[in-house]
Amino acid sequence: MTDRWGEAAAGNGLLHRRALLTGGVLAAGAGAAGAAGAQVIGDGSPATMKTPGATFSGYGQPSKWRADIQRPFAPAPGRPGTGSSRTPLHLLEGTITPAGLHFERHHNGVPQIDPAQHRLTIHGLVRRPLVFTLDALLQYPMETSCRFVECAGNSGGMTAATPTQATAGALHGLVSNSEWTGVRLSTLLDEAGVQPGADWVLAEGADAAGMSRSAPLAKAMQDAMIALYQNGEPIRPEQGFPMRLLLPGFQGNANVKWLRRLKVTKGPTYTKDETSRYSELMPDGKARIFMLEMGVKSVITRPSFGLSMRGPGVYEISGLAWSGAGRIAKVEVSADGGKSWAQAALEGPVLPKALTRFRLPWRWSGGPAVLLSRATDEARERQPTRDAWLAQYAPGQGYHYNAINAWGVGADGAVAHVYA
Amino acid sequence: MTDRWGEAAAGNGLLHRRALLTGGVLAAGAGAAGAAGAQVIGDGSPATMKTPGATFSGYGQPSKWRADIQRPFAPAPGRPGTGSSRTPLHLLEGTITPAGLHFERHHNGVPQIDPAQHRLTIHGLVRRPLVFTLDALLQYPMETSCRFVECAGNSGGMTAATPTQATAGALHGLVSNSEWTGVRLSTLLDEAGVQPGADWVLAEGADAAGMSRSAPLAKAMQDAMIALYQNGEPIRPEQGFPMRLLLPGFQGNANVKWLRRLKVTKGPTYTKDETSRYSELMPDGKARIFMLEMGVKSVITRPSFGLSMRGPGVYEISGLAWSGAGRIAKVEVSADGGKSWAQAALEGPVLPKALTRFRLPWRWSGGPAVLLSRATDEARERQPTRDAWLAQYAPGQGYHYNAINAWGVGADGAVAHVYA
Repeated sequence: MTDRWGEAAAGNGLLHRRALLTGGVLAAGAGAAGAAGAQVIGDGSPATMKTPGATFSGYGQPSKWRADIQRPFAPAPGRPGTGSSRTPLHLLEGTITPAGLHFERHHNGVPQIDPAQHRLTIHGLVRRPLVFTLDALLQYPMETSCRFVECAGNSGGMTAATPTQATAGALHGLVSNSEWTGVRLSTLLDEAGVQPGADWVLAEGADAAGMSRSAPLAKAMQDAMIALYQNGEPIRPEQGFPMRLLLPGFQGNANVKWLRRLKVTKGPTYTKDETSRYSELMPDGKARIFMLEMGVKSVITRPSFGLSMRGPGVYEISGLAWSGAGRIAKVEVSADGGKSWAQAALEGPVLPKALTRFRLPWRWSGGPAVLLSRATDEARERQPTRDAWLAQYAPGQGYHYNAINAWGVGADGAVAHVYA
Repeated sequence: MTDRWGEAAAGNGLLHRRALLTGGVLAAGAGAAGAAGAQVIGDGSPATMKTPGATFSGYGQPSKWRADIQRPFAPAPGRPGTGSSRTPLHLLEGTITPAGLHFERHHNGVPQIDPAQHRLTIHGLVRRPLVFTLDALLQYPMETSCRFVECAGNSGGMTAATPTQATAGALHGLVSNSEWTGVRLSTLLDEAGVQPGADWVLAEGADAAGMSRSAPLAKAMQDAMIALYQNGEPIRPEQGFPMRLLLPGFQGNANVKWLRRLKVTKGPTYTKDETSRYSELMPDGKARIFMLEMGVKSVITRPSFGLSMRGPGVYEISGLAWSGAGRIAKVEVSADGGKSWAQAALEGPVLPKALTRFRLPWRWSGGPAVLLSRATDEARERQPTRDAWLAQYAPGQGYHYNAINAWGVGADGAVAHVYA
């Protein structure tokens, strides 16, 4: 199937990326200068060129015209610090999440911690228990990595019987991506001296929920970090200031914020936060616990619910993919509800356990379309269909939802959330 | 020369990075739990565990305890929008600059632009002049890249006869690094259709200075971008909201902010901003113009002026390197004023025309030391000494300063700015 855009990459208008690089084919929204009234020098210069602008600022903020870009949240009545706020994925681009828009999930609010008073203790099955001040940690060798953090409950609303009409951020925004800098946990555990037989580590936060999670010692030694900086600056209060545990690829609350204590143990501790919650009920009535790694997943952020099409023409389909197992290997996109698939381009560098942006050009004819994305990671795991995902768990379970997501485009250009 | 830390990497305490990975050698600031009073569960829990914390926020902000991390600025009297603010490099880590701390350089303030009213015009030697709204641009294929922006005047104070005692940010903070997302300029120029013979492009901003710069058409076609997003969110007002030109590796003001007009021309336009300013006077009295690419450069951010040493022990030397020509190939560090050098580790992925973090462990004996860093880029260009740099220009010139920088460490642990 070919037309003036070249060979189709898949059905219902999906194009090869090179179609957009051959020049002169888009004119998507551009007006010829004459028709639209080109503003050349001395002719209709905007008012901003005639009046001095604002002065400098010590710490900048977004444009007042984009004050709509916020983390939506709805805390539980009477418990203002319990619940979550979400990253507005559909209003963002690239891969980094600004720290101010990183999703929040708190179990009893954001503690305000004076860093000079904070201590990190390492104890339990170690030869030499240690207590660190922040200043002491800052003297250690650091490392920097881009990593996503995703709440185990992200996309849990997708298990509803009918598709909730909500934005990509509202549905899937309990995932964010940052450049984290800190001290490798293995450096500190080596210094403390792990005793033979120890195989788990308990992490405890200094919040009023006393959030506590167990993680395998092997993970702590592999790529865990005591994160002190997020996107270049000291970590934000709602992300754990002055320090959080980072367990790359593991479910959000295992990355314990406001970290105050690490206890090396024999076996897991079975805290309230990993038994009464964050465990998954299976069809046979048994609960699975310590399902820590997040699965391979993707979501199209543009177009998506709330971002209508401007009329027939060529668009870019843009989205995010990630996996707790490592790098994204490929993302396939369908515009015909899964009948045919085309491979999207991945923005490099593709980093392990980090959000990866994918892009694919699409010529929308103006007819109905159902857009899907399907990611595969370097471990060859691929997103399941929604039906296949649901069959894995007992009814009503919503943790670790990672099925293929779908948006329906109507003839009027409106985008709806659909199951496909 | 070996001791308990293993073989030295260079004189005066520089260590191989593996020295820090063998475990148990640091104990830099850690206290044994018994001595320091380990805070175990139920024993001395901090107050934050006993009181619910703060609620959610739509757009988060840094901790109040780090309100000191600001962009310093000193606008000209009577001209509050003219001057610059600087990134506090010495207080940051990793490679990304938070958008709120990206340096500013304005020539007549920050225009407040309603994105719905803004237009980008492409005209001049093109077959079809075009006018774009922001909505129109958002329909085009985008790309994402990490790139530094550096003011040509960065580090200009280094030409002073005696070393100014100031922080790394105050001296060198007119450089910042962001993940930019936008539309390739070549896509738009291809659509407009560049006429034969055209070889430059004029870019004009919608600010009250009418900042205007010429760039070679070859650069515009190579890797230039109309940047719409910075670190994931819409670009900030002081960085050009709703759009800026990004000419990767070119001096700051060529990356025209609040971009409203691109004119394809035969030859450069010789605007006020590239003739009366941003040209360099050479020793023979002639001025060099259109010296657009920024040179290879590095600066140690920790330790540095204002960040004192805590006493003899092992520290990490951490800093930033960058080059307008491409990737950083290596960074060498000296602790003995240049008598011997060791190669630092580079944090990957090492990206072209982006800030690169380097790290090297250092065992400070408690005696005097002079710390230097010297970067080499993939074009094999290496930072010159200060004397060699000064000899290139007429006295008093301060643009494009990229010589080797030095910090002196005193026996008391204080760090001074020195020339070496």
